[in-house]
Amino acid sequence: MPTDIEIARAAKPRPIADVAAGLGIPAEAVFAYGPHKAKIALPWLTGLDRPQGKLVLVTAISPTPAGEGKTTTTVGLGDALNRIGKKAVICLREPSLGPCFGMKGGAAGGGHAQVIPMEEINLHFTGDFAAIAAANNLLAAMVDNHIYWGNALDIDARRVTWRRVVDMNDRALRGIVSSLGGIANGFPREDGFDIVVASEVMAIFCLATDLDDLVARLGRIVVAETRDGEPVTAKDLKADGAMAVLLKDALAPNLVQTLEGNPAFVHGGPFANIAHGCNSVAATRAGLKLGDYVVTEAGFGADLGAEKFFDIKCRKAGLRPDAAVVVATVRALKMHGGVARGDLGSEDAAAVTRGAVNLARHLQNVKRYGVPVVVAINRFAADTEAEIRAVEAAAEAEGTTAIVCTHFADGGKGAEALAEAVVGLADSGAADFAPLYPDGMRLLDKISTVAVSLYGASEVVADKAIRDRLARFEAAGHGDLPVCMAKTQYSFSADPALMGAPSNHAVPIREVRLSAGAGFIVVICGTIMTMPGLPRRPAAEAIRLDADGNVEGLF
Amino acid sequence: MPTDIEIARAAKPRPIADVAAGLGIPAEAVFAYGPHKAKIALPWLTGLDRPQGKLVLVTAISPTPAGEGKTTTTVGLGDALNRIGKKAVICLREPSLGPCFGMKGGAAGGGHAQVIPMEEINLHFTGDFAAIAAANNLLAAMVDNHIYWGNALDIDARRVTWRRVVDMNDRALRGIVSSLGGIANGFPREDGFDIVVASEVMAIFCLATDLDDLVARLGRIVVAETRDGEPVTAKDLKADGAMAVLLKDALAPNLVQTLEGNPAFVHGGPFANIAHGCNSVAATRAGLKLGDYVVTEAGFGADLGAEKFFDIKCRKAGLRPDAAVVVATVRALKMHGGVARGDLGSEDAAAVTRGAVNLARHLQNVKRYGVPVVVAINRFAADTEAEIRAVEAAAEAEGTTAIVCTHFADGGKGAEALAEAVVGLADSGAADFAPLYPDGMRLLDKISTVAVSLYGASEVVADKAIRDRLARFEAAGHGDLPVCMAKTQYSFSADPALMGAPSNHAVPIREVRLSAGAGFIVVICGTIMTMPGLPRRPAAEAIRLDADGNVEGLF
Repeated sequence: MPTDIEIARAAKPRPIADVAAGLGIPAEAVFAYGPHKAKIALPWLTGLDRPQGKLVLVTAISPTPAGEGKTTTTVGLGDALNRIGKKAVICLREPSLGPCFGMKGGAAGGGHAQVIPMEEINLHFTGDFAAIAAANNLLAAMVDNHIYWGNALDIDARRVTWRRVVDMNDRALRGIVSSLGGIANGFPREDGFDIVVASEVMAIFCLATDLDDLVARLGRIVVAETRDGEPVTAKDLKADGAMAVLLKDALAPNLVQTLEGNPAFVHGGPFANIAHGCNSVAATRAGLKLGDYVVTEAGFGADLGAEKFFDIKCRKAGLRPDAAVVVATVRALKMHGGVARGDLGSEDAAAVTRGAVNLARHLQNVKRYGVPVVVAINRFAADTEAEIRAVEAAAEAEGTTAIVCTHFADGGKGAEALAEAVVGLADSGAADFAPLYPDGMRLLDKISTVAVSLYGASEVVADKAIRDRLARFEAAGHGDLPVCMAKTQYSFSADPALMGAPSNHAVPIREVRLSAGAGFIVVICGTIMTMPGLPRRPAAEAIRLDADGNVEGLF
Repeated sequence: MPTDIEIARAAKPRPIADVAAGLGIPAEAVFAYGPHKAKIALPWLTGLDRPQGKLVLVTAISPTPAGEGKTTTTVGLGDALNRIGKKAVICLREPSLGPCFGMKGGAAGGGHAQVIPMEEINLHFTGDFAAIAAANNLLAAMVDNHIYWGNALDIDARRVTWRRVVDMNDRALRGIVSSLGGIANGFPREDGFDIVVASEVMAIFCLATDLDDLVARLGRIVVAETRDGEPVTAKDLKADGAMAVLLKDALAPNLVQTLEGNPAFVHGGPFANIAHGCNSVAATRAGLKLGDYVVTEAGFGADLGAEKFFDIKCRKAGLRPDAAVVVATVRALKMHGGVARGDLGSEDAAAVTRGAVNLARHLQNVKRYGVPVVVAINRFAADTEAEIRAVEAAAEAEGTTAIVCTHFADGGKGAEALAEAVVGLADSGAADFAPLYPDGMRLLDKISTVAVSLYGASEVVADKAIRDRLARFEAAGHGDLPVCMAKTQYSFSADPALMGAPSNHAVPIREVRLSAGAGFIVVICGTIMTMPGLPRRPAAEAIRLDADGNVEGLF
């Protein structure tokens, strides 16, 4: 089989204006970025008075090194829905540029289930991440500049929490001392950089419902505390207006297409640990107005991705999902069943059955939200019939159908059965969405509810300092916010080695942070890396232009 | 008179596709970025077989706080040439985003001589600077990553000269210690950030003649030395290919338009001190193939801007300028004649005459290159007839015509006389361009030649360490490179307070640096700031969106 980039380059893309026209978007609302990318004007989108389409979430079992294929399934399902005559729109996150040069290559689907132009999406795309980085870093510069020019707000330089960002895997910037070199350069302090997707500006960008909401959220960002412990916000620094100016064009959703020429909004890409891991509300809303079905995905497994999609994004944006798909692979379930990565080649249906406890709990969890669910088995060539049957049986035991998909090899045709099942669920009226916990619940109880109900934990461990901090957030009026769990994606527990469906574990809370602009309380359980590093042999070493000026080595 | 942004917003821009069609660019070579910006495909441009147009440089007297209006004159002249029936293309530098939020506002001309869309050009534009920053910072990450993973090249961490960049005025990043926080974060070392326009990648981007040349130049960048003092290059780190991939789309020139609908390439924007301060070779070459006249500008006064345009850009890109315009204002010449800024309101023709020694020397200097020259008097409302006459007389004494222009108030109509004069010069065949010094001259002699011939200096002062370093550059095969002088723009001397036309001063060389990728030796005379700071009241505080989503406060 050819590589992703070879498949992507061999595609004959439609002019993006035609893709937009297919959705009924008039030319004057299409801001082209070359022939195959466009932003769709926000004022036109918000002015649309059309019935909403159905919202379908693609989520997954707990990820393993074997790979699950959530993005390919999202793309394959979208293509399949269009193939069976439905007007479907795909909504995905934008990939981050930095990691393309490290280990993982791009992130625009794979095989015959990709969004294109693959190289452009993986590199600068329409400049959204650059705009987010600029807004983040303008605020950072204004914090230090305020201190430099007299510090009228009495910012405690030791308590500046706002970090700078860069869209690059650069471990050297994780911890720095800044403002060195003398009087003209300010007051030295400890500081550091995160990767752009970890910026609160990214989360805000993805949750903002319009420009006014964007400005208000940016203004609420807490950047530091005074020596008395009072919060200092972006609005206090008068940075919110200029930040919004930097973001205003970026906030219009990006339209591209699948290999099969179907519309896809690819817009926003917040971290799925310290942020909520979904594409922008602007894109999802656009899709719902323009399509009869919107297929979207959320980061990591359903315990993190679907939970945040439901409890943060849907709750805050007033979205009501109609169906969900949980993606599983035979290989990954085998790993959850105890098979080592090197041994995945031999048939082992019993291991699949053992590992399917992971799938089962994710299915139970999704149903708690009142959202009907189907399992997509993302088939690999080596999967045997007995192994497939084991997945189907596990799904059936949960009252759920499991459907074999081959979109990676076959494109949308390989996901038509899944599409039929999804249409059946979404059109059944069975959905009765409700978030897991009410806004008014105490913050610590929200954390416990997620941990006990979804993770199978027996308890949450939070020392007095953590509990006091949560109480302070409540006293300051942030008690109504949802919680954003930052936990390993590899396990229901906080221990990445505990695969399958561990129960009665304790979830330790290491730290809680207020993201007042994004509108959630980040709850950190374990170690969370907000700035990746490059590996010994970075992918960058093999990325180059060939003799025709095409990109080589971006996979 | 309305503000720049009000004038820009009131304009009725042509669709950029029409502007491109007016230059004979087919639709398939036009990569639109929304309705009013486009990149023009490089392969189409390089494949063009058309006679070259005439090349006209707009330069200026030594700048003063009174303002000269070089960019407005470039735009006004381009508009005027089109008005008198010539097919003229304007080539300008791209403004940097960071400074828009500091003191100076935008940089896309002013009054009725602007390029539009003004806000977009001043903000993210087509993402070129973000691409340049990413390429710069990928290389930086790969340097530290190489050291982290065993340092096979034996890089001396104390001798890493490659700095990171951000497009923001952020003094806190001028001097940092990076890689703090323990083993996982690398080896702590002193480091720092420059603003994007100061990156050698920016200079390379602007001097590269095609993608192959771009890759070769990127590979030659020296990022550090080994403990033995041997240079380590980007190619040694295998970063050149990935950097070129990040830059390949950006290298296509950006087409926009003036307020009067005439074509303007706005592309690249290197510093005019540690780099050469001109728009990209790609844009200038595009203009020369598409237009009968190209009007372009160079940074600062003619001692720096024109010198580098001639000795670096034209020399290396094989360009042969046909005419030059030196912009002067009555107000600025009065300041050169000793009048304080607060006293500019009163008529003082004698001061203009005194200050015109500055103009005279710039005229003499331009003529040394074999380029015929005309003076543009950028007229302000308060200028008196006697003062204008004083400028005209000074120009006449140098055998040069001075022509009053009112493009700021009147648009292209206000520069028609200048346009007629420029056409006369450019079409006369009088130009016989040659750079100031030959490639083969010793580096120190090149520096002396510039200082003595153009600056009126009696000598160059360089201590042994500097002379040894220049000798090492020569021994390493870099002796053929031109020199890139980094000197204050406010004086012919290295002392910014010495206005007018100082003579017999000494030019002290503080430092010399090799920019092997850009292809010049930077010669630093005095203090050069490569990372600006924000002022006490940053412009950002007043920049915001109004109720209609338009930008306010960007001027």
